Amino acid sequence: MPYSVILAHPRPGSLNHALARAACAAIEQHGGQARFHDLHAEGFDPLLPAAEVARDAPLPPLITTHCREIAEAEGIVIVHPNWWGMPPAILAGWVDRVLRPGVAYEFLEGDAGEGVPRGLLAARAAVVVNTSNTAREREARVFGDPLDRIWKDCIFGLCGVAKVRRRMFETVVTSDPATRREWIAQTEALVRETFFTR
Amino acid sequence: MPYSVILAHPRPGSLNHALARAACAAIEQHGGQARFHDLHAEGFDPLLPAAEVARDAPLPPLITTHCREIAEAEGIVIVHPNWWGMPPAILAGWVDRVLRPGVAYEFLEGDAGEGVPRGLLAARAAVVVNTSNTAREREARVFGDPLDRIWKDCIFGLCGVAKVRRRMFETVVTSDPATRREWIAQTEALVRETFFTR
Repeated sequence: MPYSVILAHPRPGSLNHALARAACAAIEQHGGQARFHDLHAEGFDPLLPAAEVARDAPLPPLITTHCREIAEAEGIVIVHPNWWGMPPAILAGWVDRVLRPGVAYEFLEGDAGEGVPRGLLAARAAVVVNTSNTAREREARVFGDPLDRIWKDCIFGLCGVAKVRRRMFETVVTSDPATRREWIAQTEALVRETFFTR
Repeated sequence: MPYSVILAHPRPGSLNHALARAACAAIEQHGGQARFHDLHAEGFDPLLPAAEVARDAPLPPLITTHCREIAEAEGIVIVHPNWWGMPPAILAGWVDRVLRPGVAYEFLEGDAGEGVPRGLLAARAAVVVNTSNTAREREARVFGDPLDRIWKDCIFGLCGVAKVRRRMFETVVTSDPATRREWIAQTEALVRETFFTR
């Protein structure tokens, strides 16, 4: 069973890299196939060109591959830092280009695109792991944690993935090695519980 | 007085282009200088490299120019479509690279970056204009409009711009020319009222 693990962090060796690798390990320990994409390392181009907007637009091979993998995935893991209440641009662009009409969602016949889309992803669940330098209470009170609705409602809800488990680990900048090891263990547990526990 | 107008839409001639030009026209009619950036047309690179993260990192000249302009702006206008509750990646990356520590915000001495930042932008107000293909009631109920908190609280609030006026025009895909002309007029009025009315 293939699972997609998508990582967006610019620095090799980052905590985000460790969390993504922990997710891959948990998937493989349970006999799944982890399809891992370190978007920065792969040089993913996040700009959706106007020519790719139409549903039947011709796509570059790399985008076609990403689309096929995400459509096939049994489960999806997303790992990124919280930057301004958004994912880093490289991941925002992955969403723009890969979660396409006809791949991740569609409109019913006669709907010009203003109606209610139907989700097409086969994945039954997704895990989102974020890191942050904002204390939890301040995030909730001052910023409202927009990433929660972005991933659960705007993205995975629209694409038909009803079960989304999300964790945000904070604050990274003042964390000690023991805390970071605990976050890695919690990520493994979250992947295991979300995808492999009945 | 310089004002920054930042546009993110991949298709020249789009409604978003018309809204951004209306904002520029309203600024110039009141004697302001509109510094207009069509990020797609300029080929803005949205990827924040690891080497640019540190506060005192050396920056490419283009980023230095963007930083200087946004620091000098009397007012800021942002125009973009609502994609997945986020700006298009090119604008998410403009935020990541241009609204830097030391330019748009700073932490007080002795704060490792986990505390409460202080906004540094001189702008006293900002206008955010979005377009959408989701009906207003459905946006509020199903998606929660994450862009509202992203721009008002996560970005401009953190950078010290207290007054943020935002409009979202929908639904674009089924709109007629008269409606779009009305949206353009409303954008001009919003810029006028936000920046030039006491």
